[in-house]
Amino acid sequence: MNEATHIGLAHGNGGRFMRELIRDLFARHLGNPLLDIQADAAVLPELDGEPMVTTDGFTVQPLIFPGGDIGSLAVHGTLNDLAVAGAEPRYLTLNAIIEEGMEIRKLECIIASLAKAAAAEKTKVVAGDTKVVPKGRGGDLYLATTGIGIRQPGLQLGMDRIQKGDRILVSGPVGDHGTAVMLAREQFGLHGNLKSDAACVLPLTRLFYSLPGLRFMRDPTRGGLATVLHEIHQATGQGILVEEKAIPVHDAVQTVCEILGFDPLYLACEGRVVAILAPEVAEEALHLWQQLPQGKQAAIIGTVSKTSGVILQTRLGGQRLLQELEDDPLPRIC
Amino acid sequence: MNEATHIGLAHGNGGRFMRELIRDLFARHLGNPLLDIQADAAVLPELDGEPMVTTDGFTVQPLIFPGGDIGSLAVHGTLNDLAVAGAEPRYLTLNAIIEEGMEIRKLECIIASLAKAAAAEKTKVVAGDTKVVPKGRGGDLYLATTGIGIRQPGLQLGMDRIQKGDRILVSGPVGDHGTAVMLAREQFGLHGNLKSDAACVLPLTRLFYSLPGLRFMRDPTRGGLATVLHEIHQATGQGILVEEKAIPVHDAVQTVCEILGFDPLYLACEGRVVAILAPEVAEEALHLWQQLPQGKQAAIIGTVSKTSGVILQTRLGGQRLLQELEDDPLPRIC
Repeated sequence: MNEATHIGLAHGNGGRFMRELIRDLFARHLGNPLLDIQADAAVLPELDGEPMVTTDGFTVQPLIFPGGDIGSLAVHGTLNDLAVAGAEPRYLTLNAIIEEGMEIRKLECIIASLAKAAAAEKTKVVAGDTKVVPKGRGGDLYLATTGIGIRQPGLQLGMDRIQKGDRILVSGPVGDHGTAVMLAREQFGLHGNLKSDAACVLPLTRLFYSLPGLRFMRDPTRGGLATVLHEIHQATGQGILVEEKAIPVHDAVQTVCEILGFDPLYLACEGRVVAILAPEVAEEALHLWQQLPQGKQAAIIGTVSKTSGVILQTRLGGQRLLQELEDDPLPRIC
Repeated sequence: MNEATHIGLAHGNGGRFMRELIRDLFARHLGNPLLDIQADAAVLPELDGEPMVTTDGFTVQPLIFPGGDIGSLAVHGTLNDLAVAGAEPRYLTLNAIIEEGMEIRKLECIIASLAKAAAAEKTKVVAGDTKVVPKGRGGDLYLATTGIGIRQPGLQLGMDRIQKGDRILVSGPVGDHGTAVMLAREQFGLHGNLKSDAACVLPLTRLFYSLPGLRFMRDPTRGGLATVLHEIHQATGQGILVEEKAIPVHDAVQTVCEILGFDPLYLACEGRVVAILAPEVAEEALHLWQQLPQGKQAAIIGTVSKTSGVILQTRLGGQRLLQELEDDPLPRIC
């Protein structure tokens, strides 16, 4: 192991190479008192409150992109699912499916980044597993993480609480992650300074926990903002009316989308929140978000309405149905 | 989705095809009151006791093999890690990394098998995620599961409790899983009726929870029995002496190993337990196991001793050092 520069199948066979990879790379970066690499299962201190659990897989290509990498993305993605559900994250578990031939230095950069992202939110990786798959049967590295957190006492959120007249907020510009990852692939001959928005949204969601009119939050990832709006429409049967000119989109994202024929409303974010609030608290909520660096460009973008379907009020004053995403040429970016 | 027979990239894009795959396949088989496919995180009822968590990745090829498949294996593997740690499993989370082009019928068989294995132990899948990777970047299907359980009150197990003179028990013949999976690949031109031992070991481990002399348990998987013995040796500094003639090995496994040049002691099991017990309870423990169909061929195979390293007393009366597994031609089988 010490001499190897690239992952071999023997790093997954249960023997010395695997033991040393886990000890010298994974445990060195992720080490904490609860993570015992010799144990089959980790004991967690009693969970005082209502536990919540979420799980996520990460297959982004390239593994390292402007604004993040698959390691930090795995932590942020998992914590964000807890955050929008109103839970404070406590523990993570980590699965790494590593392709034979992966450069060990690159793996180490990614695990170090993952460890840093977890530590920033005082979240511990308490259990892990590694598998090595043969060359040509993987994507260099796939990660799967599970997050365990504790729900804010008394906080009740859910799509079933959404009512007609509620306001729809978004915490920042949409489509940055999807666009940044596409550009990082360099397959379109386009370049730019655009960075992924990948980040932990806990600072945003925590601001809302005590707002009595908070109904529901979600982080738009695969399928973007439009997909979250569709999920709400499908689950509640309520119409959704959003205003194109109110939806924040970076100029660079808009330009790339126009060149390539994409719609930024369907592109992934990894650090944004869509929140549904009662109309009487919407302005206060917006103001709270705008105090944060992450929420400076937050906006009220629409209303739960009596329209049928998800309707976009265009800049030109017309109305356009935002279709549910189907089979499309959108590259895989999360 | 209804019309598709194979997975396409659109089954992973967040839109309609993905929603229908999750609703019509995953949720239909895994459905339970805690699994809400529209939620970002699942609320767990309060965990009354000391929670334990474990996580595991599954990359076995072929996906379906004599005696099991990747779906049941994922459940058994995860529950077994909780079982040997002395915990009763409660909840599972599931990540599926699906390769573009996978036959949907095959995926459904595997998820149905996973659901059945989970239900058999009254364990609920409470959260899940699916990703689709492009053709040629996966293994048809990789799974990653996390298990949450509650530790038996008062049960203290660990390698640090192992003492000189303790006895080593194994619950059944070793190497069946590794051999059955190798044969299922049909790359050696060998055929046989051998089945994987893949199974849930909870019936075995539960019998020991109340034995006062129980020190430690582990399920030998990758690297087999020899690797578990090495882990104990490395963690405790104690010598391990095992008797070749006491270690149960099926004749068919022995034959295949002789033909192919493998050592069954290094081949994976997926339904066996190695237990370390104080000498005064070893016979009683053996008797308990032998009452179960799963434990009929259980045996006391050796002793924690003053030897240095892991020593095999051979059938011929000699002694052989069991080396730690290094880089070797062992096919990937779990």
